[in-house]
Amino acid sequence: MAQMRNKQVILRDYVSGFPKETDMSIVESTLTLKLPEGSNEVLLKNLYLSCDPFMRMLMTKVESVEGFPSYVPGSVSYALSLLESQSLTGFGVAKVLESGHTDYKKGDLVWGLTKWEEYSLVPSTQMLFKIEHKDVPLSYYTGILGMPGMTAYAGFFELGSPKKGEKVFISAASGAVGQLVGQFAKLTGCYVVGSAGSKEKVDLLKNKLGFDEAFNYKEEPDLDAALKRYFPEGIDIYFENVGGKTLDAVLLNMRVHGRIPVCGMVSQYNLTQPEGVTNLTNLIYKRIRMQGFNVFDFFHLYPKFLEFLLPHIKEGKVVYVEDIAEDLENGPAALVGLFSGHNFGKQVLLVARE
Amino acid sequence: MAQMRNKQVILRDYVSGFPKETDMSIVESTLTLKLPEGSNEVLLKNLYLSCDPFMRMLMTKVESVEGFPSYVPGSVSYALSLLESQSLTGFGVAKVLESGHTDYKKGDLVWGLTKWEEYSLVPSTQMLFKIEHKDVPLSYYTGILGMPGMTAYAGFFELGSPKKGEKVFISAASGAVGQLVGQFAKLTGCYVVGSAGSKEKVDLLKNKLGFDEAFNYKEEPDLDAALKRYFPEGIDIYFENVGGKTLDAVLLNMRVHGRIPVCGMVSQYNLTQPEGVTNLTNLIYKRIRMQGFNVFDFFHLYPKFLEFLLPHIKEGKVVYVEDIAEDLENGPAALVGLFSGHNFGKQVLLVARE
Repeated sequence: MAQMRNKQVILRDYVSGFPKETDMSIVESTLTLKLPEGSNEVLLKNLYLSCDPFMRMLMTKVESVEGFPSYVPGSVSYALSLLESQSLTGFGVAKVLESGHTDYKKGDLVWGLTKWEEYSLVPSTQMLFKIEHKDVPLSYYTGILGMPGMTAYAGFFELGSPKKGEKVFISAASGAVGQLVGQFAKLTGCYVVGSAGSKEKVDLLKNKLGFDEAFNYKEEPDLDAALKRYFPEGIDIYFENVGGKTLDAVLLNMRVHGRIPVCGMVSQYNLTQPEGVTNLTNLIYKRIRMQGFNVFDFFHLYPKFLEFLLPHIKEGKVVYVEDIAEDLENGPAALVGLFSGHNFGKQVLLVARE
Repeated sequence: MAQMRNKQVILRDYVSGFPKETDMSIVESTLTLKLPEGSNEVLLKNLYLSCDPFMRMLMTKVESVEGFPSYVPGSVSYALSLLESQSLTGFGVAKVLESGHTDYKKGDLVWGLTKWEEYSLVPSTQMLFKIEHKDVPLSYYTGILGMPGMTAYAGFFELGSPKKGEKVFISAASGAVGQLVGQFAKLTGCYVVGSAGSKEKVDLLKNKLGFDEAFNYKEEPDLDAALKRYFPEGIDIYFENVGGKTLDAVLLNMRVHGRIPVCGMVSQYNLTQPEGVTNLTNLIYKRIRMQGFNVFDFFHLYPKFLEFLLPHIKEGKVVYVEDIAEDLENGPAALVGLFSGHNFGKQVLLVARE
């Protein structure tokens, strides 16, 4: 019976502050590519892994993270911390090698929760979606057609309640989620401005992704003034990805009855003392709804989401920019790069082509 | 034609920091108690005036306050700043002396927006509600049956979406709004804890208002620890009246899918540099909805509110604690006292008995 090498990315220790490549190690174990008799597990060959900011939260040694489903290591209801689990957990695209459950069969392509390793043995109850539409790049199921896509869709449409003509601001706008929120907002007939961390990303937003305006936040000494320049009448929807100082400046520029879907606060995850947000009284003056969310609450909308998005992709009305690193060994660098804005578009890790 | 003395409370200058009695003056003018021929105004004799924290916002010289209706001085769409207007604006109970409009007639009792003076001439478009139910203390229409009552009702039921058995925390819990939110929560079958700023207020909450628990925040060096003591399983609804450090501690103790109706942040109004709130990432982890609101958006619910509340008042199932100061001359002290927690229950100012 074939014993296969199984390269894995493991967490060496809990992380405080910015994660470093050296917080992770590449180890090798072996795996028999055969399910035990009577098993109802699924044996996966991982093809693409997704680098996502939420993975940082699971690396912190504090109380476990509430709000993640029980099958996510590090979540409150999971038995093991991420450190004790064998390798990093994240989203990915994989091929089914063997299946002990009738929902999956050998050769199926799936996306969902998997581990940072070459082969994964997962319970059949794992959150996996069968990939039915294969006339798009497979890597899309880590991004535009996967968790980040659903995040953009649920956050913008369900929590943002957008209306035609409204003014939308998006931080981390060239990232996996932001680039889609901007395009969804344009499809809705909104005015859309994004912020990002380099000239190249700003160009991308304006010239390829169809944003009305974009700016490099690193070159704006006064974010409040920048927002007043782009939104003289104020912001109706702020899609929050970064938190901290940006949120504080946005609060000064929101319009009455504005909405702030809070997708992430990536500027804060690595701080031992988060920045204080001082302008929250604007929530009252402007009757703002600010709402944190987690895509795990919205996956029941996935079929509706595909129905909405697939035609737009095929007609070229929605595009998606990916930054694909290759080889599991480069995974730690790719993941760490998210937190310094090293990625240009959605950061993906190619583990195997098929 | 009778020329009557009209004592008025005016704002001497814009306020920064804590308001002081000396920021206001008592002046006297005269008024003819007769409407000009053809006028459609309403001449009011003010009986009770309401001391409310929102009045502080209108005293600041910054941009005008958005979110108030156009007839509130200091609001964006109002032509005059509060300083230029003749006297302080606020809610009150008044008797109609003369009316140029068919909606009101001489002798009617009304509540709504009026001015801090003995007699007020107001446009017939003024926000005034005719008082139909007179078998309760008239002063109640500045509180439990007026704007604070509607605020508690809309904030708790419309934004809080309470369910039986949920855990509710209320800051400034013995105030005009807080004491009602607590009683509404008990009527809903929730577990309710309030914080207040003195032993007497804590006793009031526990012994008269039916809160399950209450504590004096001034005697809790570690608010996070206090909340963990009273909410070992976390908080479902936080009715926010104070902001700042309290909000920060609450964010650490919210449950997944918790709601935070933001009614006020009274601890912050008088600070030139507001306290920073550092725990907002919990909005994401716990998928919390935090929503500022303004009672002016909810007055269409007033008839429904009366129908709900009047029977409870008459049956003694909801009680209301008022702190009544007498005479317009004591108005500035009563108003200023709100910001140091001097009031014991809803602060009212009695101007005239009839």
